Order: sequence, then structure tokens, then C-alpha cells
Amino acid sequence: SDNVSASITTTDTSAGKIKAYTCQFCHGSNGVAANPAYPNINGQNEQYLYQSMKAYQNGERTNTMGKMMKQQLSSLQNQDLADIAAYYSMMD
Amino acid sequence: SDNVSASITTTDTSAGKIKAYTCQFCHGSNGVAANPAYPNINGQNEQYLYQSMKAYQNGERTNTMGKMMKQQLSSLQNQDLADIAAYYSMMD
Repeated sequence: SDNVSASITTTDTSAGKIKAYTCQFCHGSNGVAANPAYPNINGQNEQYLYQSMKAYQNGERTNTMGKMMKQQLSSLQNQDLADIAAYYSMMD
Repeated sequence: SDNVSASITTTDTSAGKIKAYTCQFCHGSNGVAANPAYPNINGQNEQYLYQSMKAYQNGERTNTMGKMMKQQLSSLQNQDLADIAAYYSMMD
């Protein structure tokens, strides 16, 4: 899959599935959110997914949902984010 | 379509299409972004689309893309945002 960061050269969708375990409770196991306040992320652009997660981590999305997502992503490294982005971007 | 705000009681997808004219240059006429740095928005949850546009307007997305989107949305009223959200959410 496309590189999403200068520091990431490969992505692993199988690892992404494992790392995305907690994502499913809001975004669905198939990337379709049960709650309409949350985005569907199945088939979303990989680069956008990665950059959005980085924006949350960097505190660049400052509303309530942004703060929640920052907390959710706090323990993930760039490679984890890249793998998760690859995993969801490949879903139909 | 579902109400997306306490202040919005009806949405008009035909009006949304007209109001979304400038959106297409980044998000595509079919909601599929040509640039992978931008999100696809076809079929996205209407409520999420509305709330995201409000977050941009409110300056709650602070990175470069967030600032660009705040400018893009600066002239739109809540009803406009609701109509645009309804329009893109209905796309396949």
C-alpha cells in the first residue's frame, strides 16, 4: 500500500486488524459506524486516515470527540497508525 | 433525512448539491477525493459530516487542512451545512 509517512515504509494489514481491536466499538468491525455521530472509515483514503490519527494525537482536533480520540490513540506508534490505516482503507 | 442539529428541521439535498459546488474540487463530484490526503465523503454519516463542518468553522481542527477548511466554510450558515451533509450522505 502507499506510504503514508516518510518514516513508514511498509504496512501490515494483518497487524492493523489486531491493533484496531478497540476501534471497532465505535467504527464497527466492518468500518461502518453504528452511531451516526462517528465516521464510517471503511475504504477511506489510507493517507487521510493516517493524517487524521496524527492530528488527534497532536491535539489538533480540539473538540470533545477530538479529545476522546487523542486519548484512544495515545499509546499507538506511527507504525501502528499506519497499519490501522492500511487495514481500514482496504475494506469494502 | 435525520435532523443534524436542534436548529435544523429539514434538509434539501437539491439545495445541498448547489451549495456544494466548491467541495467537488477536492472531494470529487461523486464524493470520492482525487487526492488521498483528502477524505472520501460519499455515503458518510450525515450527522458526522455536519458536526465535522461545524468543528472546522469553530476552529476546532487546527492543523493546516483544518485552517483551509475553516476558510472554505466561512460563508456558510447552519442550514447550508445541513443541506451539504444531506447531499453527500445520500451518495453511493
